[in-house]
Amino acid sequence: MASNTPPSAHPRTALIAVDWGTSALRGARLDADGRVLEERASAQGILTVPPDQFATVFEANYGDWIGTYGTISLISGMAGSQQGWVQTPYCPCPAGFDEVAAQLRWIDAKTQRPRIAIVPGLSCEHPHAPDVMRGEEVQIFGAMQLTGLRDGLFVLPGTHSKWAQVQGGRVTGFKTYMTGEFYALLSQHSILAKTLGADGAFDAAAFCQGVDVALQGAGLLHTAFSARSLALFSRLGATPLASYLSGLVIGEELRSQQPQASQTLILIGSDALTSRYAMALARRGVASQRLGSESTWAGLHALAQTLQR
Amino acid sequence: MASNTPPSAHPRTALIAVDWGTSALRGARLDADGRVLEERASAQGILTVPPDQFATVFEANYGDWIGTYGTISLISGMAGSQQGWVQTPYCPCPAGFDEVAAQLRWIDAKTQRPRIAIVPGLSCEHPHAPDVMRGEEVQIFGAMQLTGLRDGLFVLPGTHSKWAQVQGGRVTGFKTYMTGEFYALLSQHSILAKTLGADGAFDAAAFCQGVDVALQGAGLLHTAFSARSLALFSRLGATPLASYLSGLVIGEELRSQQPQASQTLILIGSDALTSRYAMALARRGVASQRLGSESTWAGLHALAQTLQR
Repeated sequence: MASNTPPSAHPRTALIAVDWGTSALRGARLDADGRVLEERASAQGILTVPPDQFATVFEANYGDWIGTYGTISLISGMAGSQQGWVQTPYCPCPAGFDEVAAQLRWIDAKTQRPRIAIVPGLSCEHPHAPDVMRGEEVQIFGAMQLTGLRDGLFVLPGTHSKWAQVQGGRVTGFKTYMTGEFYALLSQHSILAKTLGADGAFDAAAFCQGVDVALQGAGLLHTAFSARSLALFSRLGATPLASYLSGLVIGEELRSQQPQASQTLILIGSDALTSRYAMALARRGVASQRLGSESTWAGLHALAQTLQR
Repeated sequence: MASNTPPSAHPRTALIAVDWGTSALRGARLDADGRVLEERASAQGILTVPPDQFATVFEANYGDWIGTYGTISLISGMAGSQQGWVQTPYCPCPAGFDEVAAQLRWIDAKTQRPRIAIVPGLSCEHPHAPDVMRGEEVQIFGAMQLTGLRDGLFVLPGTHSKWAQVQGGRVTGFKTYMTGEFYALLSQHSILAKTLGADGAFDAAAFCQGVDVALQGAGLLHTAFSARSLALFSRLGATPLASYLSGLVIGEELRSQQPQASQTLILIGSDALTSRYAMALARRGVASQRLGSESTWAGLHALAQTLQR
C-alpha cells in the first residue's frame, strides 16, 4: 500500500504506529489515510529491554519521527505486559474499537507532548480459565478494515495461535492454541529431534498426510509418536518428517477448533504460515482469506481515527 | 515376594532376569518359582554404553552371578534397539509368550555358555503408522501371571505410555501416548516453565481440576495455555500449577483413549504414577488395579518357563 503513495504528494504523518513484541520492535509512519510512509524495525523486543529503559529505547528508535512530525504514537503488543513498558490491563470481551480506545494507557500524559499510548490486549472467559491476547486484537481490527468484514472467524496462526469470533465489529471471544510452541518443543527438545531433518524444503504431501492423521482424532499425544515410528520403519525420511509433524500439530488445532465450511474465515500472519493453514483448512473443506502484516498498521490507524471522532 | 523366602531354603537360581533400559540397568536372580533372590541395579542405561562395550558392561554387572549360578539370562528393554547391544526385530502383534519366546535373540549362541538372550519388543499397525514397545511387553506378561488375567486393557504410564489390549493371553494391539514426555517438555522448556513451581508436593485438587478440564475435550494445544492464564490471573499458585498441568496431560491421554467403565484395566508402573492414573480414571468412573516393578521379573520368569516347555 505504501508503494502506491507518490513521493511528490508529501503526505503528512498522522500516526506513529508501533508493534512492540517479545522479540521484535517494529514501527511505521502512517498518513491520515493509513498509508505507510516509512517503516523501521529492530530486534529490541521487550525481553531485551531492562525494566527502566523502555522510554530510552523507544526514543532511540522513534525519537526523530516524534520530533519531526509531532504526532501521537500507538503501541500494540507485549509492551503492555507485566514484562513490558507499562502494564496495561486487558480489555474484556466483547471488545471493539471503542472499548479498546477507552482503555488506552497513556504514558506520562500530563507532561509528555506528543502523547504515546499503549493499546490494551483482550481477555475473555472460558468455563475453565481466562484467555488473553496482546497485539493480535489490533491485527483483527486491521483485518476488519481491510476486508470490510464485521463478522467472521479471524485466525492468527503462530507460537500461540488465536481464533477470534467477531460479531458486529467486536471480538466476542477467542481461543488460544499453543500450536507453534508445541511444534518447536517437539522438533527441538523431544525424542523426535534426533530423527527430524533441519528445517528444509516444505513437503506438501507429508504435511497433508499429517493433517489428515490429526483430523482422524486420535489426539496429538498419540499421533506425535507416529513421527518416530514412521522414521523407525523408514516410511518417512528426515526432511518430509518435519512437514509431517507440522501437519500433525496444525491438524490437531483444526480438529480441536472444528471450523465449519459455512464460516467466513480470515487468516492473518506470515505468508509461510497462513498458506499452511489455508492448505490444512481446505482438507476440511473450509475456505479462507489470507492477510499479512499490513493488518497491524491498518488496525492502529483505525484505532487512531476512533480517537479523533 | 522375595522377602517371603526363608534364607535357609537356599533356593537355586534359575534365571538371571535383566531390564536394560535407556537410562538404567536392573537385574535380579530368580528361583524356579520366580521369587527374587537378589537384585542389583546401576545407572548404566544403554545411552551410557559405547556400541562395542555391551558385553563388557553386562559381564561387569552380572558376570559373578553367571559364573556362580550358571543359568540363562533374559534381557528385556532397549538393549534390543538400534542403539542397544544387538538389534532385535520387533515381534508383530498378536503376540503372546510363544511368539516372543520364538523370536528371542540369542547372543553368541554357538560359543557362549550359559546363554544370554534379548527379548524382542512388540510392533503393531495403526491405519496411519506402526507402533512399537520394548520392555513393556515383559511387564504385561508378568502382570498376566500376577493377576491371572488373560484378557483386559493393560496400561503402562510413563514417558511414552502404552495402552495394550490383551485377549486370550496375547497382546492384540496397543497405542503409545507421549504423555510423560509432553509433561517434561511443557514444564521444562515451554513458556509455562517460568511460572511452574519446582516439583513439589502433589496437589490432588489441582490435578483433578486439570483432568476434568482435559476430559471436556478442548484439546491439549488449547488447555495447556490455561496453565499460563490461570497463573497470570493469580487463580492458581506455582505449586498447584505443576499438578494441574500433570492432570491436563494425563486427562488428555484418557480423553483420547476413552477407556470404558466396563473394561478390566491394569495399571503397571511406579506407585507415584499409577496412583495419579487411578485417580484420573476414577473421574471417568473407570476402576483399575495397580501393579509395580515386580511385573518385569514375573514376565521374564514366565518367558523362561515357556522355553522349558
